[in-house]
Amino acid sequence: MKNIDISEISNELEQFAIDRDWNQFHSIKNLAMALSVETSELVEIFQWMSEDQSNSIVDNPKKFKEVEEEVADIFLYLVRIAGKLNIDLESVAKAKIQKNSEKYPVEKAKGNAKKYTEL
Amino acid sequence: MKNIDISEISNELEQFAIDRDWNQFHSIKNLAMALSVETSELVEIFQWMSEDQSNSIVDNPKKFKEVEEEVADIFLYLVRIAGKLNIDLESVAKAKIQKNSEKYPVEKAKGNAKKYTEL
Amino acid sequence: MKNIDISEISNELEQFAIDRDWNQFHSIKNLAMALSVETSELVEIFQWMSEDQSNSIVDNPKKFKEVEEEVADIFLYLVRIAGKLNIDLESVAKAKIQKNSEKYPVEKAKGNAKKYTEL
Amino acid sequence: MKNIDISEISNELEQFAIDRDWNQFHSIKNLAMALSVETSELVEIFQWMSEDQSNSIVDNPKKFKEVEEEVADIFLYLVRIAGKLNIDLESVAKAKIQKNSEKYPVEKAKGNAKKYTEL
Repeated sequence: MKNIDISEISNELEQFAIDRDWNQFHSIKNLAMALSVETSELVEIFQWMSEDQSNSIVDNPKKFKEVEEEVADIFLYLVRIAGKLNIDLESVAKAKIQKNSEKYPVEKAKGNAKKYTEL
Repeated sequence: MKNIDISEISNELEQFAIDRDWNQFHSIKNLAMALSVETSELVEIFQWMSEDQSNSIVDNPKKFKEVEEEVADIFLYLVRIAGKLNIDLESVAKAKIQKNSEKYPVEKAKGNAKKYTEL
Repeated sequence: MKNIDISEISNELEQFAIDRDWNQFHSIKNLAMALSVETSELVEIFQWMSEDQSNSIVDNPKKFKEVEEEVADIFLYLVRIAGKLNIDLESVAKAKIQKNSEKYPVEKAKGNAKKYTEL
Repeated sequence: MKNIDISEISNELEQFAIDRDWNQFHSIKNLAMALSVETSELVEIFQWMSEDQSNSIVDNPKKFKEVEEEVADIFLYLVRIAGKLNIDLESVAKAKIQKNSEKYPVEKAKGNAKKYTEL
């Protein structure tokens, strides 16, 4: 993946909403709900699959296409929320990786999936 | 927001998982579950707020910080899934905007929030 | 609502799964995923509505029917999980109400929606 | 599980809300959000477990206690929503089982987890 111009996508989404007079519906609360609904549509694809089957989803072109669609929906709502709140996705992402590396030090977290509160 | 180097973040997440021997847990199925859990943590912040309150979340620095944290978590899991599946976020996002503009033509969608199947 | 015979419903669900050889898919993990997907389908109905509109959903027979369907799906998956784990819904529900009354004493919780950790 | 007196639980929840002046927050929209958040808390318990581990959750008393708590929370919000909307849980549940038996006839559904739209 190359660099993504998030501002461009964010601006397109804002124009999309303006054109349809949709900002009246796009409160942060509603957008968060819509985002969670889209992530559940992604979960639905995998709910009866084994983990191995989920990892081989690319071998099922029809299902993989559905995954791409849901991933796109999730990304678009996330960019929309970040755009409305002026959250810099790259900045908060990098800060979070740093924070996670402190919550999950290698020596404690290695090979187990416990939450940091249980380490 | 400036351009985001998604590959860099994706590579950091892979290295993070390798260092902790976490790829055994990171099936696509499990990552989708974790992504949905993070989006619910975002929803939780807004569940008892009015829509207006959600739009003014930036005025509450403590809550806004929580929003940034959850947005970061969501973004990281999404990048992780996209990285594992070689999905180009920008490409699928732009294709989806195009598709949505066809599903929701301005003349039909203007001022209402109906799903395209009900338009 | 009258008394519900949960065991009867739980037994019907088990027979339904046996008849279709579905217990192989019905791990608790998968059932929890499916339950969360169904709750999101309920959320989807309300995501662009105002709170007032959601409270008047009964005035929209088509939408209300959808709500009933999703409520049923959620209930069935919950009974299924409880049945598999031998959890007595009534007993845990009553214990939880008691616990909540301690976490949210009237004098502290009255008129505000803060989480008990913030009271 | 014996018979559950849903009306009693529903009435307790209504009194709980009245005592705390919480009906102002308990729109159906908000309750649906809260319900989805609770189901994600259940999902979180299982997200890094194998399916076998999830089926043996009873062997881990601490985790099993968490499962019971989340199941209780989900049930309470579901009863709350049903109570507010005068939905008879038993009636919609039985109707749904009947409907599902038509959507998933044994001969077509046996041994596969396909959605009825794909059968």
